[in-house]
Amino acid sequence: MSAFNSIALDVMGGDHGSQVILSGAAMALKAMPELCLLLVGNQAEIESSLFSHGIQGELLSRAKIVHADSVVTMDDKATSILKEKKNSSVRVAAECVREGNAYGMVSMGHTGAAMVASMKVIGTLPGVYRPCLATILPTFGSNPIVLLDVGANVDCKSEHLAQFALMGAVYAEEVLGIPDPRIGVLSVGEEDGKGSETTRHALDALRHLDINFGGNAEGRDIWNGKFNVVACDGFVGNVVLKSSEALAEGVFDGLRGSLRKNLLSRIGGLLVRPSMRSFYKKLDYAEYGGAPLLGVKGISIIGHGRSNERAVYNAIRVAASGAKNKIPSRIQERMLHLLHPSHETETT
Amino acid sequence: MSAFNSIALDVMGGDHGSQVILSGAAMALKAMPELCLLLVGNQAEIESSLFSHGIQGELLSRAKIVHADSVVTMDDKATSILKEKKNSSVRVAAECVREGNAYGMVSMGHTGAAMVASMKVIGTLPGVYRPCLATILPTFGSNPIVLLDVGANVDCKSEHLAQFALMGAVYAEEVLGIPDPRIGVLSVGEEDGKGSETTRHALDALRHLDINFGGNAEGRDIWNGKFNVVACDGFVGNVVLKSSEALAEGVFDGLRGSLRKNLLSRIGGLLVRPSMRSFYKKLDYAEYGGAPLLGVKGISIIGHGRSNERAVYNAIRVAASGAKNKIPSRIQERMLHLLHPSHETETT
Repeated sequence: MSAFNSIALDVMGGDHGSQVILSGAAMALKAMPELCLLLVGNQAEIESSLFSHGIQGELLSRAKIVHADSVVTMDDKATSILKEKKNSSVRVAAECVREGNAYGMVSMGHTGAAMVASMKVIGTLPGVYRPCLATILPTFGSNPIVLLDVGANVDCKSEHLAQFALMGAVYAEEVLGIPDPRIGVLSVGEEDGKGSETTRHALDALRHLDINFGGNAEGRDIWNGKFNVVACDGFVGNVVLKSSEALAEGVFDGLRGSLRKNLLSRIGGLLVRPSMRSFYKKLDYAEYGGAPLLGVKGISIIGHGRSNERAVYNAIRVAASGAKNKIPSRIQERMLHLLHPSHETETT
Repeated sequence: MSAFNSIALDVMGGDHGSQVILSGAAMALKAMPELCLLLVGNQAEIESSLFSHGIQGELLSRAKIVHADSVVTMDDKATSILKEKKNSSVRVAAECVREGNAYGMVSMGHTGAAMVASMKVIGTLPGVYRPCLATILPTFGSNPIVLLDVGANVDCKSEHLAQFALMGAVYAEEVLGIPDPRIGVLSVGEEDGKGSETTRHALDALRHLDINFGGNAEGRDIWNGKFNVVACDGFVGNVVLKSSEALAEGVFDGLRGSLRKNLLSRIGGLLVRPSMRSFYKKLDYAEYGGAPLLGVKGISIIGHGRSNERAVYNAIRVAASGAKNKIPSRIQERMLHLLHPSHETETT
């Protein structure tokens, strides 16, 4: 089992319990013949479920159970993994990465705990001021967008925003396959003068770099496909992400409700369903596989608590892709190369 | 013509030109028998159009043209109204309010110029640190929500957020008719400890007041109806507003597209249309009549540039309602009463 192909999966986290996670794990093992999974959690519980998920034979040879005593629940603090929950599945998964037994980790559990485990146990990359949580959102353009930070850093300085932008660009290029991604800084108007002091200074820092920089991005630019990467502080990012999720859900629920309103609309609903499905699918978070925490010494993918098996599969898939493309090394290189171009000249 | 019933309407602002504005004006004069309108703009252009919009006879007796030489265009700076565009329609409308000829103004033109005209020409209420722009959004609950600030103040202190919350509550109560509105501060988690230093201090300031205070509101709480008023800085508010508009539009456009995809879905689309219409209508910005700038010595309603006649009508309607309910006086009272309770005791 090579660490390079190995991903540690927190089997115990997530709203739906271990069975959904294992089901996603089985999908991933089947779809990716080179993947190895460290299944982290209660050994007995996992062992007794492997067969029912079809993890046997060749698949089983690429799955290894790593026991963890406890699990971080929603009532626990994020920092509990440093104290009373040192043996929790999310922390043990992070330790697999730190010790070189896995190249990345995936958790659908307590977001804060997964962030603390990634930052404190795996650790921050040299040259990175602060790791940040990215989210991949569908757009009405042809590519998805990387929005970051969405919750790891509430108060940010301009140099943090600039680094977020650059880390997001590495991810967009290497994992999403978007060549020369267009980068923006989230602000309140297109013109350079618009924004807060922090965002204006971030523009200054990014403007002279050799990147595809589009300057300020407005709120609407998150969805129209004009940008591939948009950087913001974790406060704005978190609010935008949560409000967008709720708005999209509300609209779809309302439409579903109106499709069931009476007999005519029920019939109409049946007729439009096939055409609507591809549109729904485009906006389905489950296709995008969770939020990468960028800037740590390994891959860390933090999934939605209510992930279904497809979302778990996709989270493992993007973790494996991040590992294959050595995202942490690329981020480290990019930080040196772009923020301190003189440094590169010195060392080469 | 009593100033108390009078609203100054910037006829020249807006993407669709003066005819749409005059059409909305005619709707308002017909629907509100006590309303008087000052139609501010090019006298000849307005005069020659009144008849075609049915503004004649009794309606004409309640409409008065106030000539303005110029109009602020999207290429002008917001501050142009203080210099080269002193005779612009939006500034002349603000002067009507300052001079007591109208109780409020409505403009669909350059948002920044309308804000500057309101703040610099009409002026800020005593006791108000900073006026702020509110937006009224539909929710999936039973009431709309007042979100503020959405663009007047990019960098805010906690005392500004606290005042925004209180001004929004006056508006929710007096104009939207929501008794004892539930107030929140936009943040990144429900618990009191979550948020930025600024939002946490705003919580402290609001917590002990005699209001219906719900603490932190998360991004999703903008849409679920849990709150009636949510305060935030103008950076976050602007980003959330613009991203929500673009997301909702994109979803509706995408759905419309899938309803036209093939013959079956076209037929289905026809069948579901009546049931969908009431849902669409609930989310239509045109129903909510523009954004009030709160904290100035008069009513100022800033409409969307692309307002149709119904949106113009609704903007005039909420301006008239704000005038009738003396929003500026109520805001001033509330500031004194709630932020300095001792002051009230001293003066009574």
